[in-house]
Amino acid sequence: MSGGGAGLRGIAAGNTSICTVGDGHNLYYRGYEVAELVKKCGFEEVAYLLLRGKLPTAGELKDYRVYLNDLRKIPPEVGDVLQKLPPTCNPMTVCQLAVDLFALTEPETEPTEQQALECSEKLLAKMPVMICCWQGRSASFDFEQNDQSPIAADFLQRLIGDAPSGEQVAALDAALILYAEHEFNASTFTARVVAATMSDTYAAMTAAIGALKGPLHGGANEAAMRMIEGYSDSEQAAAATHKMLADKTLIMGFGHAVYKSSDPRSAVIKEVSRTLSEHHPRGSLFAISEAIEQVMRDEKGKFPNLDFYSASAFHFLGIPTELFTPLFVCSRITGWGAHIIEQRSDNRLIRPTADYRGPGPRIVPDLATRT
Amino acid sequence: MSGGGAGLRGIAAGNTSICTVGDGHNLYYRGYEVAELVKKCGFEEVAYLLLRGKLPTAGELKDYRVYLNDLRKIPPEVGDVLQKLPPTCNPMTVCQLAVDLFALTEPETEPTEQQALECSEKLLAKMPVMICCWQGRSASFDFEQNDQSPIAADFLQRLIGDAPSGEQVAALDAALILYAEHEFNASTFTARVVAATMSDTYAAMTAAIGALKGPLHGGANEAAMRMIEGYSDSEQAAAATHKMLADKTLIMGFGHAVYKSSDPRSAVIKEVSRTLSEHHPRGSLFAISEAIEQVMRDEKGKFPNLDFYSASAFHFLGIPTELFTPLFVCSRITGWGAHIIEQRSDNRLIRPTADYRGPGPRIVPDLATRT
Repeated sequence: MSGGGAGLRGIAAGNTSICTVGDGHNLYYRGYEVAELVKKCGFEEVAYLLLRGKLPTAGELKDYRVYLNDLRKIPPEVGDVLQKLPPTCNPMTVCQLAVDLFALTEPETEPTEQQALECSEKLLAKMPVMICCWQGRSASFDFEQNDQSPIAADFLQRLIGDAPSGEQVAALDAALILYAEHEFNASTFTARVVAATMSDTYAAMTAAIGALKGPLHGGANEAAMRMIEGYSDSEQAAAATHKMLADKTLIMGFGHAVYKSSDPRSAVIKEVSRTLSEHHPRGSLFAISEAIEQVMRDEKGKFPNLDFYSASAFHFLGIPTELFTPLFVCSRITGWGAHIIEQRSDNRLIRPTADYRGPGPRIVPDLATRT
Repeated sequence: MSGGGAGLRGIAAGNTSICTVGDGHNLYYRGYEVAELVKKCGFEEVAYLLLRGKLPTAGELKDYRVYLNDLRKIPPEVGDVLQKLPPTCNPMTVCQLAVDLFALTEPETEPTEQQALECSEKLLAKMPVMICCWQGRSASFDFEQNDQSPIAADFLQRLIGDAPSGEQVAALDAALILYAEHEFNASTFTARVVAATMSDTYAAMTAAIGALKGPLHGGANEAAMRMIEGYSDSEQAAAATHKMLADKTLIMGFGHAVYKSSDPRSAVIKEVSRTLSEHHPRGSLFAISEAIEQVMRDEKGKFPNLDFYSASAFHFLGIPTELFTPLFVCSRITGWGAHIIEQRSDNRLIRPTADYRGPGPRIVPDLATRT
């Protein structure tokens, strides 16, 4: 059977109970609409849902926050290497290196579902700290936090230096929930292919990070940010967008391979960005984003995806643009982990075939006679 | 369309001109039978064939050897980290880390076919040196070699300390050729999925190493070695094999997912092992291997695959068992690189779908009411 050069489009590569886009107009994590999860839950609740299969009770959530908090410490041999890396390093390669370094110090002991859960939760807790450690920002634990402080609060405090407001923590929580999981996208599929060889969770995670690194997968919000921040007002942004469309320049942050009429996550992150813009000196970036959205709708009938308003939202939170995709990693670790666990629960090697298009059998010419 | 839980078995995930197993009884690299390549070529010629698309002329081969030789040097910041890693580290995680470290010091500049070729050849030259560097063995260049010394000769000299014989170099060359490429196997498919996001060559390579690390993919020759070396003679090996079959214990190094009646690489590596056994104090491991092969044929109709006689061959060359799979990496870099180049030449994101089997849409319960 041939999937040909079509990139397996429309071919089911396996079963999943984790996530579905339904008929292509919504996004559900284990049956719960993602917009409702953002309204009612923090990121840790959704991480629990994805990795452990159910929403936690109040008691379970409290214990889970304490558990993740305890896991934040990173081994000194990992921190030492990360701290010595120049800040100019590729941030996604740093994330891969961080996973490998940690895997060397605390390897997964056997390829079970339980181990996949434990290793995924270790990375969920440690990855934001490892990123801050490389960035030379508060890798230590010298600031006051209680033993249940959310990942979002901890990350913002380390990165920015000041204690974040409740609004800021809620905003980052929303983004982390929206980015957490998306069925058999390229990085998650990569994680499943690696896990299916019975390799370890860390190998599957670092492979997934490698796939997310590609501009056709992660990175669209960084590209959107670099575009948006170049404009000083809405009029300039609208005019520039018209010109880009006329020049057939690709505009990042619009359209989606799976969604047909809109990305259900976009409306949520747009409201997050709008709220944050009200207290930010460059709050005009929100109006600039809206102007670009309007031109894209009017001229091309294209809708913004999650990445478009994430760009301004992350910027308003004080997150440097080059950390947008690493932040995607911090969130998607939950989805990757859930898929590694699911792959192990009913494993079979993922090994497609290829259609051969090369030369037929031929004799190896002697070295002297080759041309 | 559903490939279901069947691991994409029999589904073509793309086109390739690099390699085919024909009707399942042979193996061709760009049309050349692999057994004939072993007879007539060194590993560098086959690397050139896979990566650059044709067999080199005598002049091109000479230049290529010099070129690869020049590329062997590794940056001090990479060597420093590798040398500090304990020898007990997982060797495949070390390989992943080595790629990441190198990628941080000399990143790929753009995702072109030319860059993929250059990065693949850098890793082809440097990976054996990086492994030796971690092993604390002759990472320096203080021994006499000419500027065209083959990868196999350089690796053996670093690892063992003595200059290898021509027979030893030819033996390792044969193994490196046999392990170089095998169509859309799990690690190569992983490399293509990552490359298809337009991620960099190093990210695709480290992901592929992660897949090869899994016991359902690489590692069978290590498992075969640990079995073989436990027997003192053929009679004991035969009796133990009968008992393992009776106990339904999995015996590694036999059968193959793609080949039906025999692995075309096995006969080649078996003769390599036989030749090496004649000069080795534990040469009896060859007869022990033959005794196991005989029982497997008689009792189960199963044939040895490439991994089975590779085990004794590598052992006779003085290669520690835990480096068998890293050596597989040193060889397969050529196949992975060829597939990354090919993927880039006609790229489309590889993004299958999943069959959803989870709960239908449901309301998010309030925290206090959850059970």
